[in-house]
Parts: sequence; structure tokens; C-alpha cells
Amino acid sequence: MSPEYLSTHPDTTAGQTLERVRQRIDQTETIYALPVTDHDRKLVGIVGLRSVMKADPDTPIRDLMNNAVSARATESEERAARRSADERLIVLPIVDAEHRLVGILTFDDALQILEDAESEDSARQGGAEPLRRPYLSTPLRSLVRSRVVWLLVLALGATLTVQVLEVFESTLEQVVALSLFVPLIIGTGGNTGNQAATTVTRALALGDVRKRDVARVLWQEARTGFTLGVILGGVAFAVASLVYGMDFGLVIGLTMVALCTMAASVGGIMPLLASAVRADPAVFSNPFISTFVDATGLIVYFLIARAVLGL
Amino acid sequence: MSPEYLSTHPDTTAGQTLERVRQRIDQTETIYALPVTDHDRKLVGIVGLRSVMKADPDTPIRDLMNNAVSARATESEERAARRSADERLIVLPIVDAEHRLVGILTFDDALQILEDAESEDSARQGGAEPLRRPYLSTPLRSLVRSRVVWLLVLALGATLTVQVLEVFESTLEQVVALSLFVPLIIGTGGNTGNQAATTVTRALALGDVRKRDVARVLWQEARTGFTLGVILGGVAFAVASLVYGMDFGLVIGLTMVALCTMAASVGGIMPLLASAVRADPAVFSNPFISTFVDATGLIVYFLIARAVLGL
Repeated sequence: MSPEYLSTHPDTTAGQTLERVRQRIDQTETIYALPVTDHDRKLVGIVGLRSVMKADPDTPIRDLMNNAVSARATESEERAARRSADERLIVLPIVDAEHRLVGILTFDDALQILEDAESEDSARQGGAEPLRRPYLSTPLRSLVRSRVVWLLVLALGATLTVQVLEVFESTLEQVVALSLFVPLIIGTGGNTGNQAATTVTRALALGDVRKRDVARVLWQEARTGFTLGVILGGVAFAVASLVYGMDFGLVIGLTMVALCTMAASVGGIMPLLASAVRADPAVFSNPFISTFVDATGLIVYFLIARAVLGL
Repeated sequence: MSPEYLSTHPDTTAGQTLERVRQRIDQTETIYALPVTDHDRKLVGIVGLRSVMKADPDTPIRDLMNNAVSARATESEERAARRSADERLIVLPIVDAEHRLVGILTFDDALQILEDAESEDSARQGGAEPLRRPYLSTPLRSLVRSRVVWLLVLALGATLTVQVLEVFESTLEQVVALSLFVPLIIGTGGNTGNQAATTVTRALALGDVRKRDVARVLWQEARTGFTLGVILGGVAFAVASLVYGMDFGLVIGLTMVALCTMAASVGGIMPLLASAVRADPAVFSNPFISTFVDATGLIVYFLIARAVLGL
């Protein structure tokens, strides 16, 4: 935010405003859009320099100004920058709790904020801390440091799957062929969860979904996951039945239905939970989804196998 | 790109330019930055309206203009938009092969292009096609359609792991405990590959890495992956040795070293290969990495297990 702005008033004329712009041209961050304030310094609109130059000099700013999109000084700068970019604003006025103008965010500062945020998001979504230097000149130790903690955390989470499999070790010993599908099942669960999380994270960023929409997102994702599960499960049933027999086909097919429903539901609400605890949805979601879906997916798989195969 | 621009000449004065801006204020996309061209219409610089207004009216534009960053009309609009945003330009001049001005890209159009591209990238990285409507008003069938093809493709890829495990089924029957670590090993390979792919994809987007840097990226990632593998393998060796005995610890530890080296290398060069075949690195990389790393990771795991356990 910059405190160096130039504002004008609704009753000031275009000519007077233009004169003021000329006088103060060096003391302001930008002249291309001017916030309009009333006598209490409250923001009442915004006017583009182009409108001011185009108008008859006697026209009052009131007739030229537009409603101003603004941000509160207490909002996060990323939110303010996102709004500025979404609305394609050269200037986003920043106001206090009484809607008094306290500064401006120019489009170039907004772009800088968004670019930094996106580098971070993109790195964290892939499970690596953002680099501080260009990739090729980043030393080995920095690359390792940016990744090793996440890998260890994720590996620690994955030991949950080792424990789940240990619980079902006797089932595995009876039917070793069950282990053949473990990567396929875990992978499908992870993919389904990721798709849901990515879609909802983006919807959150665009403001299409809010924290309070948990129930609607859950309903949307549970149905989507179930439908995907029925399609994938159908295909899996057909293929696995042919190769490994009907019983096996049924186990794999039913597991797909249960797993996809669960994975999409968890994947969909995780970004909302993340934003509710003020964590970054991009960072928080994926590792939790994988860990949770991998472990519970295996439990579902073995329970269905035991029931269907009568073990 | 907009063909409705206003340009000026190096020998025109600030006063004349301002007069021309006033006359043509309705016929141009923006007045806040003006490309400067010579008598052959070749782009020689750019001048901000602010500089023009600030200057003495007799100052020639030559003394006010800056070097112009520009884009070729033949470039992809996403590249041009990225450059405009990187340089925080209100106007990016677009030129032909002879460097003659043919149009401008305004910052608001650039933001629109980048936003669309980012929605696409973000959706595709998560393995879902971008939605055309706000999430909560997207019908179930559209959500399913945006995800089902990728899920089926990924599941088809994952059947490779079923085949690999079938090849080693006798080994699995001899030592069922080997199957306990399958999710952990696959997961670690996938995470390591994803980290590398995310880092390199971002470096490509920022222009820090180019297609011809394949060898340097491979070297950087192989070393990073090896180092990560030694750290993770060390931890895994220590933990697995305690619980399952030294032999098992050695199998898991050595697998981690080989797997991380391989996964980071593949993950690092995949975005470069994608961009070499003009595919979107964000879409192309992750599924290929998972499929490849999952299958080869299991092969490596079982070969090491056979060697160490003497099966």
C-alpha cells in the first residue's frame, strides 16, 4: 500500500482536478486513477484521468466518477491484490473501518504481491518451499533444504499405511494377489482427492466458494465422487473379473465406489478446513488428503475383501 | 491485442503529444502509455502520459521516452501477457518481424489472459479440466466429465504396477512383509518426482530455465534426488532395522536412495520434454511421472529385495 496518493472531491470540477494533478504530479504514486472522497475523507468513488481529460473542464467529478471497489487496510495484502487484479484496476483504494481513504494499491504492486504468492503456492502445492534464487543458480543444499522436510513429513504420514497393512497381514498371507492392487487403489484415491482439492482451492481463490459452504461442497463432491466411483468401479469390475475372477472383480469394483466417494468428499472439504484454520489451502490439503485417503482406502479395501472373499 | 492505439514520434514535443492525446482520446484503448515510433513505424521507445504531462511542453519525446519492452505478433499471447505482467507494464507494444508497431496489449487484457491460463494450469495440475462456471453452480455431470477421463487414464497407467507386482508375485509370496512398504515406497517416489517437476515447471514459467538446459537440470536434480535419498534412506534404514531387522532396513534404505535419485531426475526433465513437444508442462508431467516412477520404483524395490534377502 502506498500513502502517496492524489484524491479529488465530488464537487471539484474536471478542470480543477486536472490542475491539481499537474501541480502534485511528483508527489503521488500514480495519476491515472484518482479516488474521490467526501469532506470526512470517506471514499465515495473513483475517477480515471482519461475521463477527467475528456470532460468539459466545468463538469463536476460527481458526474464522471464510478463506484470504487476498495479494500480494508486490515485485509491480507494477497486478498487486496487479488481483488485489484480481478477487477483490472490501475488503483485500488484502501480504506479504514470508517471507509476513510488511507492509501492506494497500484496495479504494479498488486502484480508483485500476486506473483510472490503464486510462486509460493505453486512450490508448496508440489511440496517444496519456494526458491529464493533462479533455479539453475540455486545451490544443491538449498534445493535439498527446500524439499527434505516435506518428504520426511509425507513419509512419516505414509508409515500409517504400513501399520494398516500390518493389521491385515494375515489376510494378505491368505490371498497374496490382494497386494497386487494396492498401488492402483491408493493411486486412484489420491488422484480423486487431488482433483476435488484442486477444484475447490481454485474456487476459493476466485471467491466462488466460501468457508461457510462446507455442506454444499461436501454434497457436491460426495455425489461427484460416487458417480466417478461407479464409472471406474464398473470398468475395474469388468477387467478384474476377466483376469482374476468375479469375486476379485467385485472386491476391486466396490472398493473403487467407496474410495472415490470418500476421497472426493475429503479432498473437497480439506481446502475449506485449511482456510478456516487460516492455513494455506494449497499447502495444507494434498499431504493430508494422501495420508488420510491412503490409510482409510486400504482399510476399506481389506474389509470389503474379507467380506466378499469370506476370509 | 488491440489495434486501437495512439503512438507518438521522438521529435514530436510533449505539448503536441498531449494535444494529440486530447483529440484522439476516444479512439484508443488507453492513453496512459504511448509507444514511440520512427518514420518507418518502427518501435523506438515508450513514454508514459505522466512524463508527457510533467515535462515542459517544448521538450521532444526523445528526451522523455524509455526503451520499450515489446512482444512479437507471432508469439503466444500467454508469453506476451506474462512479459507484460513481469515488467508491470500498462501497455506492451506488439511488433511485427521488422519491429514495426502493429498493436498494443493493455495490462487488463494481459491479466485476463494470465488468469485464464492459470485457471487452466491449476485445474490440469490437479488432473481436472477447468470448469466453465462457478463451482457451486456447475452441474454434477460437468464435474464428472471434467475429471473422469484423467482418472481413467491414470488408472490405466496404474495397471502397470499391477503387472510389475505380478512379475514379482513369487517373491511376495515368500516374504509377504515386503508388501507392507509398497505404498510408502510408491508415495515417496511420487512426492520426490512432483517436487522436482513443480520446481522446474515454475522455473520454466519464470524463464529461469530453457529447453536447452536439459543436461544442467538433469545434473541438478540427480544430485538433489541422491542427497534426499541418502537422508530419507538413512532414516528409513534406522527405523525399519529396529522393527523388521537389519536386512529389511537395508532393502528399504537402498530403495529410497535409488528411487529418489531416479524420481527427481525424471521429475526434473519431464517439464522440459513437455515443453519441447509443445505440451503444457503442468498437464503432461505429473501423470507420466507417477506412472513411470511407480512402476520402475517397484522393480527397483523387488530387485534390491531379492539381492539383499537372497531370494
